[in-house]
Amino acid sequence: MAALDTVLAKIDANLDSALGRLFKLLEIKSISTDPAFAADCTKAAEYLTRELQALGFEASVRPTPGHPMVVAQAKAPRPDVPHVLFYGHYDVQPPDPLDLWETPPFEPRIADAATGKQIIARGVADDKGQLMTFIEACRAFKETGDLPCHITILLEGEEESGSTSLPGFLAANKAELKADMALVCDTSMWNRDTPAITTMLRGLVLEEVVIHGASRDLHSGMFGGPAINPIRVLSRVISDLHDDEGRLTLPGFYEGVAELPQEVAEQWRHLPFSEAEFLGDVGLAIPAGEHGRSVLEMIWSRPTCDVNGIIGGYTGKGSKTVLPAQASAKFSFRLVGQQNPEKIAKNFRNFVRQRLPLDCKVEFISHGASGALQLPFSSEALSRARRALRAEWDEEPVLAGCGGSIPIVGAFKQDLGMDTLMIGFGLDDDRIHSPNEKYELSSFHKGARSWARVLNALSL
Amino acid sequence: MAALDTVLAKIDANLDSALGRLFKLLEIKSISTDPAFAADCTKAAEYLTRELQALGFEASVRPTPGHPMVVAQAKAPRPDVPHVLFYGHYDVQPPDPLDLWETPPFEPRIADAATGKQIIARGVADDKGQLMTFIEACRAFKETGDLPCHITILLEGEEESGSTSLPGFLAANKAELKADMALVCDTSMWNRDTPAITTMLRGLVLEEVVIHGASRDLHSGMFGGPAINPIRVLSRVISDLHDDEGRLTLPGFYEGVAELPQEVAEQWRHLPFSEAEFLGDVGLAIPAGEHGRSVLEMIWSRPTCDVNGIIGGYTGKGSKTVLPAQASAKFSFRLVGQQNPEKIAKNFRNFVRQRLPLDCKVEFISHGASGALQLPFSSEALSRARRALRAEWDEEPVLAGCGGSIPIVGAFKQDLGMDTLMIGFGLDDDRIHSPNEKYELSSFHKGARSWARVLNALSL
Repeated sequence: MAALDTVLAKIDANLDSALGRLFKLLEIKSISTDPAFAADCTKAAEYLTRELQALGFEASVRPTPGHPMVVAQAKAPRPDVPHVLFYGHYDVQPPDPLDLWETPPFEPRIADAATGKQIIARGVADDKGQLMTFIEACRAFKETGDLPCHITILLEGEEESGSTSLPGFLAANKAELKADMALVCDTSMWNRDTPAITTMLRGLVLEEVVIHGASRDLHSGMFGGPAINPIRVLSRVISDLHDDEGRLTLPGFYEGVAELPQEVAEQWRHLPFSEAEFLGDVGLAIPAGEHGRSVLEMIWSRPTCDVNGIIGGYTGKGSKTVLPAQASAKFSFRLVGQQNPEKIAKNFRNFVRQRLPLDCKVEFISHGASGALQLPFSSEALSRARRALRAEWDEEPVLAGCGGSIPIVGAFKQDLGMDTLMIGFGLDDDRIHSPNEKYELSSFHKGARSWARVLNALSL
Repeated sequence: MAALDTVLAKIDANLDSALGRLFKLLEIKSISTDPAFAADCTKAAEYLTRELQALGFEASVRPTPGHPMVVAQAKAPRPDVPHVLFYGHYDVQPPDPLDLWETPPFEPRIADAATGKQIIARGVADDKGQLMTFIEACRAFKETGDLPCHITILLEGEEESGSTSLPGFLAANKAELKADMALVCDTSMWNRDTPAITTMLRGLVLEEVVIHGASRDLHSGMFGGPAINPIRVLSRVISDLHDDEGRLTLPGFYEGVAELPQEVAEQWRHLPFSEAEFLGDVGLAIPAGEHGRSVLEMIWSRPTCDVNGIIGGYTGKGSKTVLPAQASAKFSFRLVGQQNPEKIAKNFRNFVRQRLPLDCKVEFISHGASGALQLPFSSEALSRARRALRAEWDEEPVLAGCGGSIPIVGAFKQDLGMDTLMIGFGLDDDRIHSPNEKYELSSFHKGARSWARVLNALSL
C-alpha cells in the first residue's frame, strides 16, 4: 500500500478527470419516482458498474422488483484489515419546477460563487457527488497501489422513492453484504469549514388512536351534556401528555435516555448555531420543548412526542352542531438512546386507556416502531474517523445528531448487525430536492481526500 | 269557515297527495352550510312559494345576503281573529357520512317499521316534514272554506348554518312580520303517543377557533421539540374547559343560570323517562355531564359546551411525520335562563387567548350567538293549544324543555316582541342530523290535524 500522501496527491492530480466522470453520471436522468425514467436508472447503474469494474472491483448490476442495485467487491491484500460496506444512491429527485433552474438540471456545470466553485446539477449533492467522493478515493488507492480495507459497495436506485426493494434485497443478500461496519455518505458537514460525523439518529414510534363514543353522530343540542364527546377524551390525552416544563408525562418514557457525554455537550454548547435563526426561518421565535434544553438537544438527543394529525366531527365550512361518534389522532414519538419502542407504545396505550371513560372504546393502530441508533461515543472507528477528518479539514469534526431517521442505517443495524459511520460533505444550502442543486467543488475534492484518510485510518 | 270536522276530514283525504308534495321538497338538496348547494336552497324556496301561491297566499321568494326567505300572507275573513306568524326552515344538514345511509338521503321513501310507517330522507323531521304539516292544515282550511286566523308564513333557508341573514331580515321587515304570536314547528313530541309544547329553549353560541403556529407544515423529525404544535395548544383549551365534576370552568359561565321552579322540577321528576334507555339508544350508559343533575336537566335546563369538530395535520391513511402549521375546532355552547351569549363568546375568546403560547396566533370565527328562551306558563294561547292537542292525541301535552336552540324564537321575542308556541311532532329517534333521518307518517298526518285544531282554538 502506498503512503497516504501519495494517495492524496493522486486525488489532487485526478480532480479534472474525476469531474469528467462525475459529469457523465450527472447527465443521466435517473429519476426513480417517475417510471418514464426507468431506463435512465438502469443506465446509471450500468455506468457505475463499469467504472467500478475498471477499478478492479468485482461489480454487477443486480435486478430488483424496482430499479437495480449495484454491488461491487474488492479485497485488500492484507487479510487482517477491516471490511467496510459503503452505501450511496444513484437515483435523484425530479427536477421540477424546471423554469426555476438557471441552466438545465442534467447539464452539469461549474459556477463561480463568492465562497468558491460549485458544481450545479440535479442530484450532485444528493447523492451522486457524495458517492463519487468515495469511488474517487478508491481509485486513488488503486492507481497508486492497493486498497487499505476490504470494500463492498452498495449503490441503490430507489432512495428518493421509498427504498421499496431494499429490505428484500438486504434479506436475500445478507452474507454478501455483511461487513464489519457500514459507511454512508448522505449527510452534511456542520458548515463550509467544519466536517461532521452523524452519530445519533432518533427512533420513531407511530401510533394512531381512535376513540369511539356513541354508536352514531348525535345532535349536540339533544345530547350535549349527557353524552360523552370523544374529541374531549382525545384532547384530554393530548393535553395530559406533556407537563408544564415541556416534558412527557408518560410513565417510564425517559428510561434509557442518557445525558450527553460531557465532551459532546460541551462541543454542542460552543457550536455556532442560532436558535433564533433556526426558528425564525419557519415563523417562530420561542423554543417550545423541554425547558432548560437547547434546540440542538431537542432535535438531536432528546425524545419528543408530536400529534401529526387529529380529526373528529364536522370539519367543513360553517358550523354543524354535531356530537361526533368518534375522534382520532396520529402520534409520533421520537426516541433516543436506549428507549424501548415496544415498551413506549405499550405505555402510551395504557396512558390512553387510563383516561378512557367507561362509556368509550379505543382502537390503536401501529404505523411502525423503531429504536434510536447510536454509534457508541467510545467506538474505535469513530475515534479514527475523527482524527482522519481533523487532519483533512483542520477542524474538530462535529459529532452531530439527526432528528429524523435514515432507514438504511436502521436496516444495517437490525438486519446485518453493523454500526454505521455517517460522513457526508453536503452543506445546508445545497438546495437538495430544489432547483439549482449544487455541491461545493471543495466538498467533492476534499470529500474524496477525507475518505482516503478515513479508509487509511481504519486499516491501521 | 267550515266546521273543524270538515277540515280534519279533508286532511285525511289529502294524505296521499300531501306526501307527494312533501317528497318533492325532500328531493331538493337544500344544504345551507355548503356553498355548493346554494342553488338548491333557492330551488326549495321557489317550490314552497309556488305551493303557497297556489293556496291563495300572497307569497314571494325574498333575497337575503345568504339563502332566500319565503314570506307568505293570507287574511281570515273575520277581522277580529288573531294574527299568527308561522316559522319553519327549508334547509337541511349535510348528509355525511353518506355510506351509512341505507338509501340515498335525497330520495325519500316510505318504510314499514314495527311502530308504523316512516318517511326516510334528509331533513324530513328537521324541518321539511314538520313545516309541511302546517301548510297542509292551511290547505285543508282553504279547500273547505277559509282560514280561521290571519296567517303570515316565514320560511328560512339558513337555520342549519347559523341563521346569519335572519336578524337583518327581521329588522328590515318588522312591520310585515309582526303578529300577535308566533308558531314554530321544529320540536318533538314527548313520545309516540304524547304531544308536547316546548316552553324553554337553550340558546347557542357557535365559535370556531383556528390556532396558527409555524409559517408552514414542518417535518416532525427536524422540528419536533422546539417548534410549537397547534394541535397541542387546541387540546389544552378543550381539556381545560371542563372540571372533574363536568362543570365548565369558563369564568362567569353560570351567571344567569337559575334553578328550576319547584313545580316544573316536580313535573319533570315524574315524567316517564329512562336515562338508561335514552343513552342506551345511542350505545352509551353513563351520563357524562354535570355530576348530580338528571339527564333531562342536562339537556333542557343546564348549559353545556361541546366540540363539534376538530382538524389539524395529516388525517389520511397511514402516517406522515408532519408538525402542522395550524389546527382548528368548532365549539358550541348551549345556554339557558339569562346567560348572556355575547359575554360568553367574549369570555371564551379570552379563555383561549390565556392558553395561547406567545409563538401562536389565534383566529376566531363566530357562527352565531343567541340567548335561551322561556314561554310564560300563564299564557292564554298556551292553554288553548294544550286543549287542542289533548283533543287530537287524547293525552295531556308535556310542557317540555328543549336542548337545541331555535334562534328564530329568540329573534321573535327580542325584535318583534312576540312569544312563540313551539309545537312539533318529531320523535327522539328521528335521527335528525344523522344518517337515515325519518319522520313518522303519523307525525305528518296527525301533525297537520293538530295544527288545524290549534288554529281553530286560537280563533275562538
